[in-house]
Amino acid sequence: MSVPIAFGSTGHGVAARRGDTVLDLGRVARHLSSPHEAVLAGPTLDALLAAGRPTWDAVRESVEAWFDDAELVERFGHPIDEVDARLPFTVADYVDFFSSREHAENLGRILRPGQPALQPNWLSLPVGYHGRAGTVVASGTPVVRPSGQRPGGPLAAAGESSFGPSRKLDVEVEVGFVVGGSSALGSAVPTSAFEDAVFGVVLVNDWSARDIQAFEYVPLGPMLAKSFATSLSAWVYPLAALEAARVAPPARERPMHPYLQSDQEWGLDIELELAVNGTVVSRPRFREMYWTPDQQLAHLTVNGASIRPGDLFASGTVSSASPEGYGSLIELTRNGEQPVKISSGETRAFLLDGDEVVITATAPAPGGGRFSLGDVRGRIVPASAPHPTLQSKEEHS
Amino acid sequence: MSVPIAFGSTGHGVAARRGDTVLDLGRVARHLSSPHEAVLAGPTLDALLAAGRPTWDAVRESVEAWFDDAELVERFGHPIDEVDARLPFTVADYVDFFSSREHAENLGRILRPGQPALQPNWLSLPVGYHGRAGTVVASGTPVVRPSGQRPGGPLAAAGESSFGPSRKLDVEVEVGFVVGGSSALGSAVPTSAFEDAVFGVVLVNDWSARDIQAFEYVPLGPMLAKSFATSLSAWVYPLAALEAARVAPPARERPMHPYLQSDQEWGLDIELELAVNGTVVSRPRFREMYWTPDQQLAHLTVNGASIRPGDLFASGTVSSASPEGYGSLIELTRNGEQPVKISSGETRAFLLDGDEVVITATAPAPGGGRFSLGDVRGRIVPASAPHPTLQSKEEHS
Repeated sequence: MSVPIAFGSTGHGVAARRGDTVLDLGRVARHLSSPHEAVLAGPTLDALLAAGRPTWDAVRESVEAWFDDAELVERFGHPIDEVDARLPFTVADYVDFFSSREHAENLGRILRPGQPALQPNWLSLPVGYHGRAGTVVASGTPVVRPSGQRPGGPLAAAGESSFGPSRKLDVEVEVGFVVGGSSALGSAVPTSAFEDAVFGVVLVNDWSARDIQAFEYVPLGPMLAKSFATSLSAWVYPLAALEAARVAPPARERPMHPYLQSDQEWGLDIELELAVNGTVVSRPRFREMYWTPDQQLAHLTVNGASIRPGDLFASGTVSSASPEGYGSLIELTRNGEQPVKISSGETRAFLLDGDEVVITATAPAPGGGRFSLGDVRGRIVPASAPHPTLQSKEEHS
Repeated sequence: MSVPIAFGSTGHGVAARRGDTVLDLGRVARHLSSPHEAVLAGPTLDALLAAGRPTWDAVRESVEAWFDDAELVERFGHPIDEVDARLPFTVADYVDFFSSREHAENLGRILRPGQPALQPNWLSLPVGYHGRAGTVVASGTPVVRPSGQRPGGPLAAAGESSFGPSRKLDVEVEVGFVVGGSSALGSAVPTSAFEDAVFGVVLVNDWSARDIQAFEYVPLGPMLAKSFATSLSAWVYPLAALEAARVAPPARERPMHPYLQSDQEWGLDIELELAVNGTVVSRPRFREMYWTPDQQLAHLTVNGASIRPGDLFASGTVSSASPEGYGSLIELTRNGEQPVKISSGETRAFLLDGDEVVITATAPAPGGGRFSLGDVRGRIVPASAPHPTLQSKEEHS
């Protein structure tokens, strides 16, 4: 089995990972006077992302050769356990989709009982919304329980709410797509440009406060329920790493407008695992996603919205067509009514302070077998009291 | 009447405007070896925004003195007509609110006839959503008519849509607040920190495609209906310019949670004008906004979401309590049913290709009278066909 390399950022700058070995790419490139030195010299992947597909492919080939050079690995390599991985790139705009039919139907049944599970538009377009780019954080960053207005209070029917820490803090197991290409304002990006626009994939935990969401989301969608934190895995796997994972997406139920049609197959055989405090509670299969990432990219730009390096779009919660594959606690526990078992006899309806959530994934390796796509982890810390914390550069310099 | 200064960015870098005179601040600061040289040296306001309130106040005082120095103005000044103003700062995250009660009720009556005009949560919190920061553009940037899925098609009841250029292209007259402060992830920013967090105000046109919005927005809110372009006025007026504009907000109908309470008065007597092809079609009054910007800032961070320099949050459409003050065409024309008259006997239901929209505003000047807050303008150009336009830095260098 050959293990694909992934790209990230550490305290030493741009780095790559192969298996459990991390190589400092900036230092190697400088040592070798590599033609790629400029795009690998910075603290993050930003310059590499902006360089475009031909450079991405050339850099990947060079880095694979560097990993095969024992002397370079000896001099510029580290065991992954000793590496302080950072957020791999500066997030420009963050869009989150809602592209698992099972997830959309599960939430419809829970939140709108007695009504059709899918909204009328769901089969016509990949529904999505913009999230907060400034609160996308690296795997391992503690997640402070968010406070906000929750349904209830003495006059709930009239729109009253109670205020306090979320009592329904949840996860969403997702896969994210990291954009490196850019497009002109006013022009759409077709599905066929997906490989030129997208550098690679990360794992995403789109933390969600279900009670805050329930009160706020009509009519403009979720805001505070999501904007407190979104965690990314530290290592970005280039699209080339997923060649052996490509599969046909599920059959389409409704005819699609031409801009959403694709003659490529960007369904992906990625198998995910969601663990709470060390116990696996779900195994979502990404190959069941109804809308594929090339369709998502075409949709988010069909109105002429431009893309730029560092844009991130995520799949939406990955939920497979059976309870063992639901990608959020609200689905796994039927909105908290049927808690799931976790280790040492405990159960969880939603997350408690101190809980650690880890999402991992595998995909078929080029030569057979499956390889790890890394992990995204986060631990819940208690809500903090509202408190002034403004900072300015001057005060801290 | 003393005219407050505003800050922006031109081909020469950071600049200030007083009335019709523009001063190149980077060049003045260098000439004088000013202590503010570092924050004024770049191409945009980014460094100044990050410097914090004490620096903002000191810079403003210095720049006022520079405008009073005829020699400096002679050497480093330009008539505003000769200046190529740019987007004044790099937009980090963009949040758009929905804080005019009249606007929310007007849209409720148009889109949900027979139901309560306000959603249950509207009086409890400032409803808002995240927009696309990468498509915020400077005043004067042409706006390409967006294409997308619109309600209708042969099977409309089953969620079918037609695809094509928007037939209901609209404007939203708004005021935007430019953040310079930053806060730590996990901590809320109280209403009392508004002046330390917010540098100043701009005028905003939040272009909206009503047909695309109608089909896409359930349940996650507007995305493509808004993400194709949001236009900003070129000159940012510091909060100090609005001291004489501060007024009490409207009476509150429902008790507010403590985090939304404020002992300051950030209602603002800003009078706006919306003109289509030179004819004023509306005069919205900002002082009627139900939710004030200090409340909006407190709300968007109460879940622990952090802020950073360059964040932009906008008020939502400003609509006053009479038709002459509605801040969008969908309200002015009752969803297109009662077109408004514009010059030379023409009417408009929604915008046509070639139409130019200009939003202007005034506020009370410190010494009496009113001063102009500048303008935000844009002309509609025809929809473009979907077309690959990926760019990479390599190809263009």
